[in-house]
Amino acid sequence: MTINCVLSDVPYKEQYFDQTIDHFNFVSYGQKTFKQRYLLQDKWFDAVNKGPIFFYTGNEGSITSFWNNTGFVFDIAPQFGALVVFAEHRFYGKSMPFGADSFKGNNIGLLTIEQALADYAVLINKIKKTYKATKSPVITFGGSYGGMLSAYMRFKYPNLVDGAIAASAPIYLMSKVIDPSQFFVRVTSDFKQSNPICSANIRKAFTTMKSMASSGPAGLKTLSEKFRLCSQLNETSYDHMVGWIRNAFVSLAMFDYPYPTNFMSEIPAFPVDKSCGFMVNTTDIVAGLAQISALFYNGTNGKLPCFDIWEEYVECADPSGCGVGPNSLAWDIQACSEVPMLFSTDGQQDMFPPKPYTPQMRVDYCKTKWGIVPRDQWAGLNLWGKDILSSSNIVFSNGGKDPWAFAGVLHNLSANLTSVIIPDGGHHLDLRGHNVNDPPDVFKARELEKYNIRLWINTAFLRNKNN
Amino acid sequence: MTINCVLSDVPYKEQYFDQTIDHFNFVSYGQKTFKQRYLLQDKWFDAVNKGPIFFYTGNEGSITSFWNNTGFVFDIAPQFGALVVFAEHRFYGKSMPFGADSFKGNNIGLLTIEQALADYAVLINKIKKTYKATKSPVITFGGSYGGMLSAYMRFKYPNLVDGAIAASAPIYLMSKVIDPSQFFVRVTSDFKQSNPICSANIRKAFTTMKSMASSGPAGLKTLSEKFRLCSQLNETSYDHMVGWIRNAFVSLAMFDYPYPTNFMSEIPAFPVDKSCGFMVNTTDIVAGLAQISALFYNGTNGKLPCFDIWEEYVECADPSGCGVGPNSLAWDIQACSEVPMLFSTDGQQDMFPPKPYTPQMRVDYCKTKWGIVPRDQWAGLNLWGKDILSSSNIVFSNGGKDPWAFAGVLHNLSANLTSVIIPDGGHHLDLRGHNVNDPPDVFKARELEKYNIRLWINTAFLRNKNN
Repeated sequence: MTINCVLSDVPYKEQYFDQTIDHFNFVSYGQKTFKQRYLLQDKWFDAVNKGPIFFYTGNEGSITSFWNNTGFVFDIAPQFGALVVFAEHRFYGKSMPFGADSFKGNNIGLLTIEQALADYAVLINKIKKTYKATKSPVITFGGSYGGMLSAYMRFKYPNLVDGAIAASAPIYLMSKVIDPSQFFVRVTSDFKQSNPICSANIRKAFTTMKSMASSGPAGLKTLSEKFRLCSQLNETSYDHMVGWIRNAFVSLAMFDYPYPTNFMSEIPAFPVDKSCGFMVNTTDIVAGLAQISALFYNGTNGKLPCFDIWEEYVECADPSGCGVGPNSLAWDIQACSEVPMLFSTDGQQDMFPPKPYTPQMRVDYCKTKWGIVPRDQWAGLNLWGKDILSSSNIVFSNGGKDPWAFAGVLHNLSANLTSVIIPDGGHHLDLRGHNVNDPPDVFKARELEKYNIRLWINTAFLRNKNN
Repeated sequence: MTINCVLSDVPYKEQYFDQTIDHFNFVSYGQKTFKQRYLLQDKWFDAVNKGPIFFYTGNEGSITSFWNNTGFVFDIAPQFGALVVFAEHRFYGKSMPFGADSFKGNNIGLLTIEQALADYAVLINKIKKTYKATKSPVITFGGSYGGMLSAYMRFKYPNLVDGAIAASAPIYLMSKVIDPSQFFVRVTSDFKQSNPICSANIRKAFTTMKSMASSGPAGLKTLSEKFRLCSQLNETSYDHMVGWIRNAFVSLAMFDYPYPTNFMSEIPAFPVDKSCGFMVNTTDIVAGLAQISALFYNGTNGKLPCFDIWEEYVECADPSGCGVGPNSLAWDIQACSEVPMLFSTDGQQDMFPPKPYTPQMRVDYCKTKWGIVPRDQWAGLNLWGKDILSSSNIVFSNGGKDPWAFAGVLHNLSANLTSVIIPDGGHHLDLRGHNVNDPPDVFKARELEKYNIRLWINTAFLRNKNN
């Protein structure tokens, strides 16, 4: 999972909090703290009427990028008189527990979901004190891994959190009920739904490429030119290029929004349909693949003269991609420790070249790279796996076009564990701001979320009154 | 808090489990494990009908002592077809994460409530797998700090725990709603309720002693003789002796049971009444105090020729006492890190010599002794303080004569967060086995607990069926 940013025009105050480095040990780091960043907007806060705190549980990126892609919170904050806080996840953005040494040696051991949740608990408490808002209900928001964190805050800290919006949160990654091979099957479906010839041709194109690459230097040279690569391909880098292409498909499927967005680069409206346009009306399907890759890596601007596949794509413990830069290191560690994403492709169920990813491959990689052996059972136990029925006051939203939905909560589990599907939605479209091109379903989903937030706030007030 | 043991005749299998040393860090201790002890009795287990697992969350002592003092679980296990497991808390008994080095250096950082709860979660999962009991409901049991752990397992791991009996669990220690000075006020009340002259004379006796001690060597010599001390008192050891006496009162009040029990030594039935007998019908009230101390430290057997106050009482971060031996070290660390027990005496509200215990005194002691600075806010947030309403399926029982009840849940909080008071009960009397001398109230409390356990089990089955 990797999210990048587009600038929004809602201003914020950038603040830093002295956060405990190790919540779970009173000795190893003693009283040491680090500067945790959070963004704040209090102009809508109705302190007199105990307005709620809308707390965004930041995920694997700079918190500013989430601020800039989560317009829903700002759209509704005025109606609720809410204080808006976006907290940055430790080891991402500017919230580095050990500064430039954060990814060295034992320091990475402090990067866990448990520590991140504890950070948020402590920060919520601090915000409540600062704003004399101890009676303010708290609603958490988050998308993707941040949606998991939003739900987990309600699971583990219901003393602090009255309700949670968990958008496109693949929480069942932590259980054994899902089949991880479904991730790339779902990516494939998006292209198949756009046009069955599209996905068929993409599969064919990969096969053709493979023949070209196997044919020797001439084939590799042709491929290098077709894909406008900065360096000539060889047998090793060919595999990397396949990963680089597959990674483009993941992002185009996730961010298949009905209007242009700006992530790594400018992505047009309906990028899957746009991509399929390159595949169905062409005699050169390999060139079509190259156009799709360029669409993602170069964007509609098309400024890059050539593509550096090593710079633009880094293989890591998460086959859906870790992004690039320091944030990608942090996510790699998390994929190695608590978030299992064993997504393989086989070219049969999905349209991609076969690329297995077994538990043992993950262990080997993680041990070599980080000295970490995954402990999946632990995350499943601590974060409840599929057994979440004893929780309450969570809306789980999922987009019908989002490949991550395969690991999401797709049915209502109880009167106050609600699922909402946005058939035409991509990855947490509902968290984005209102847009004239939005499908009606996302409007309905946001209304349901607002209804539930109002309900949770009222319940919290009733409880406070009786307490 | 300190609990010791009497032998029961229910046999157990003593087993050891390779437990993760650090659940919250994937790097520092890597995959290292330690041998966690647990006791098991499966003769009543009805595997065919998915009998429940009764899981005792061991607290600050050897798990065998809890096995031997928790007859209630064995009394009801046959009716429920339950598998009985008693898990030992890390750093106590034989469950030493670093063997003989467990209390050295940074090793003590692994002694936290969070690690203990995680141990239990992982162990429950293991037991379920071993016994192919994945559909078996799990009910946790615990008394005192173990009662807190029992409730916390339901708070934090409701995916694993279907309901909890939390007997005499002072969970509000983790909040600011309680007045910690009330602990010794409640100890005083027990003696006052037995006979108002008793508590008045105890207070007077302490004042007389103080005069005697201040009068010089002769006074100290008389006191040493009256109390049958092994070493002659001096000005410093006088203060220690006062702590040693006060500690006897705490235990006599806690274990004020209607039949003889065996803790450190043989304690008679109704030890508070027995103690008051020494105080009200005597002209020498100081000698009365000595008799009370002897009653606790020597027991009804009276085998000790003299009392070694340094051996028998160790001052620590918990003014209610940490016991002696290695277990007392572990509890001292816990009192220094997560469990605040700021119990003072003032001689006005209570009958004891004034002895303040401020947050700063605790910090100073803990820093010097263990290099730990308490982080009370953390435990309050993580373990929910007073905000526990979002939990369910817990019975909180408290004894009217138990000084710890001041920090317990004394009212029903919801339909499934139930409080039951046993007016004539001491510290978790309900967890003890049935006894002909039991007051009727404890019978009723146990019936209510059984009713709730049955309800939780049925609910769990219904949920499993619909899942």
